[in-house]
Amino acid sequence: MQDHRPMRIGIVGLGTVGAGVIRLLDSNGALIARRAGRPIVVSAISARDRTKDRGVDISRFAWVDDMNELARRDDVDVVVELIGGSDGPALSLARCALEAGKSLVTANKAMLAHHGMTLAQLAEKASTPLKYEAAVAGGIPVIKGLREGAAANQISRVYGILNGTCNYILTTMERDRSDFGAVLAEAQRLGFAEADPTFDIDGIDAAHKLSILASLAFGTHIDFANVDVSGIRNVTSDDIREAEDLGYRIRLVGMAESTPEGLFQRVQPMLVPLDHPLAHVGGALNAVVAEGNFVGSLFFQGPGAGEGPTASAVVADLIDIARDEYGDPFAMQVSELIRQPKADSGNREAQRYMRFTVQDRPGVLAEIATAMRDCGVSIESLVQRSAREDGSVLLVLVTHQGTESAIIQTLAQISGSESLMDEPMVMPILK
Amino acid sequence: MQDHRPMRIGIVGLGTVGAGVIRLLDSNGALIARRAGRPIVVSAISARDRTKDRGVDISRFAWVDDMNELARRDDVDVVVELIGGSDGPALSLARCALEAGKSLVTANKAMLAHHGMTLAQLAEKASTPLKYEAAVAGGIPVIKGLREGAAANQISRVYGILNGTCNYILTTMERDRSDFGAVLAEAQRLGFAEADPTFDIDGIDAAHKLSILASLAFGTHIDFANVDVSGIRNVTSDDIREAEDLGYRIRLVGMAESTPEGLFQRVQPMLVPLDHPLAHVGGALNAVVAEGNFVGSLFFQGPGAGEGPTASAVVADLIDIARDEYGDPFAMQVSELIRQPKADSGNREAQRYMRFTVQDRPGVLAEIATAMRDCGVSIESLVQRSAREDGSVLLVLVTHQGTESAIIQTLAQISGSESLMDEPMVMPILK
Repeated sequence: MQDHRPMRIGIVGLGTVGAGVIRLLDSNGALIARRAGRPIVVSAISARDRTKDRGVDISRFAWVDDMNELARRDDVDVVVELIGGSDGPALSLARCALEAGKSLVTANKAMLAHHGMTLAQLAEKASTPLKYEAAVAGGIPVIKGLREGAAANQISRVYGILNGTCNYILTTMERDRSDFGAVLAEAQRLGFAEADPTFDIDGIDAAHKLSILASLAFGTHIDFANVDVSGIRNVTSDDIREAEDLGYRIRLVGMAESTPEGLFQRVQPMLVPLDHPLAHVGGALNAVVAEGNFVGSLFFQGPGAGEGPTASAVVADLIDIARDEYGDPFAMQVSELIRQPKADSGNREAQRYMRFTVQDRPGVLAEIATAMRDCGVSIESLVQRSAREDGSVLLVLVTHQGTESAIIQTLAQISGSESLMDEPMVMPILK
Repeated sequence: MQDHRPMRIGIVGLGTVGAGVIRLLDSNGALIARRAGRPIVVSAISARDRTKDRGVDISRFAWVDDMNELARRDDVDVVVELIGGSDGPALSLARCALEAGKSLVTANKAMLAHHGMTLAQLAEKASTPLKYEAAVAGGIPVIKGLREGAAANQISRVYGILNGTCNYILTTMERDRSDFGAVLAEAQRLGFAEADPTFDIDGIDAAHKLSILASLAFGTHIDFANVDVSGIRNVTSDDIREAEDLGYRIRLVGMAESTPEGLFQRVQPMLVPLDHPLAHVGGALNAVVAEGNFVGSLFFQGPGAGEGPTASAVVADLIDIARDEYGDPFAMQVSELIRQPKADSGNREAQRYMRFTVQDRPGVLAEIATAMRDCGVSIESLVQRSAREDGSVLLVLVTHQGTESAIIQTLAQISGSESLMDEPMVMPILK
């Protein structure tokens, strides 16, 4: 039987998203009350700085200095954690809220990637909801899409564009034919990238999200430690142009796959064919593909970050709780989740793009071609661009379908070569 | 407190989808039990023909000749209605099930478009779930996406490709440069189109689905009677080629918009720009866009029909029920749903594509141009193709932004003209 009294929330963390949640409830409150069957009201708030101007009137709400005290207040039914960070105050608050039997809504992917299972067990113990739609792909209801929409399916793969900053950078490089460094600097100036962009551009943020999606898709424990990660720092404007010539676009793709040998989880730049929907995901958008054994391929796209979209996902969780429509955070009891070993990626078959920057002198091509022959890597196409001012030559090739270990062997064989002027770049082609 | 006993379902209608649901439960049963927290088992079935070979063993299940009797059986917790048809046996069964206090899962868009509100009230009265994810866009969880995922938002527009048969025909015409009639015949031969394709190609099926989406998006009563519908019969291969030259693709788009003057609901072929995700929806896929005031634009794509995808959506509903995660079928109590008048579409602003087939003689262009000037329709671009064998000339133009009523006046003014060899074709350009 649904409760019709107002649902009272306490918001901790009043950055962009926290202020956005308040603005959303102010703007859409009446509609939300109709949809949720009851009003959703803010009763208490907590953040580091009480005096900061956030563009919303917070004097209406009880201010609580100690956030853990907020979690225990009688006038708070749901704690909304918007502090961020995998440990520290966020984790302490989350534990405190669940242990006090409060519902918890969080947007914190880092915390879930590291402590999701522990928190889910606390939520089970307290029979209270733990929800986190905003933690993955911002405003796109992809947690719900996997947990519920695709729940009838054995999912073989889930993958997508999980970091808007990287996608903004890659698609801007694509559009303006500009270099990574210049685009990153501009993105930082415009506020699309953080002052310290490491978590985004090195793929950590996408890896956090991927580990959560994998758990939902495969019914496995979250296993962030076993996500292989490489970011987009080494993607050059040459790569983007060469990929384009070959009929592809470069995207940072997080992919998780359930294989007979275990769980494959990786974040890496990939070449995406133009007829694949991920190739058309532009700017800071996110997108996720889930492949099920009955439904086939589902594709979700939308804004992956920002005040409005993230607040939208947080409040969607609140509405589910207000409606009394929720259950196990990771789709089943934690005791039902399986631990899968990390899959050996060595025998993963793919076509791959390889870019070498080499010296312009006789024998270099033979050296690389020999290594590939020795390691059993077969070449589908090859382009050599004429020498540039610094005397370097760009060698771009696409391999036939082959294993990853053969590529690793090839790279090892030529790694000492004096002909190489740069680290070779290898990107699989998405299929 | 969740029930952990097996949830027992009775399936009525054992066509493609009914057999698909049995196959899905056979294939993924153990996983579904983990996800749902309890097994989902078929206990009884009913259909017209007991002896037909459906490729699945149905001897395991109690066969019930009278479907309404099935709905009242003690060993049936959930009735799955897969008969189809807006009235008749499907409606009788749905009423019977809800009145008996049983949960109801249906894939029947026609029935919901016509009787959704009545059935939702019966479900409310009995405090029992009525779920219908499979009724719109097949395997794509778009009912859930609107009802829950985007629930925090005021939705301004919801639109998409809601009929796979039409999209298959249009994209095949696009790819093969072939005519509507030939592609339809081939689609019928391959089983992608019904022997009587009227409901699909005239847009009725899409209109059923659109009226359901509109209710969820805007919190309004389902108002199927006020959906304007035109199908794809009059889309020619010329239109597809001309649209392509202009940088567009033609899609049958169902669109619902909440305007200050009321509810706009229409299914019609539109020109979709190449940078819009709908332009890349190929074959029999479906796709839906929802625009919310906080989340921005959400895009969902996937298989819109067929055994596996539809069964996936039906079983997703069953899992929600097994998990005890459900609520008001149309996102709020029926008493909370608003009745909105039909919006006057006359002042809808758009750029439009217009195609005239005219006689090759002096003065024809002047005649059309004069009518457009008289009615205040301003032309952005115009192409005249040289005369064909039958002496007809193709005149294709794109208007500037303008109202629909100006276009209607223009067409009225030239409607008597002997220069016109064919009905003019008008399609708005999606923005």
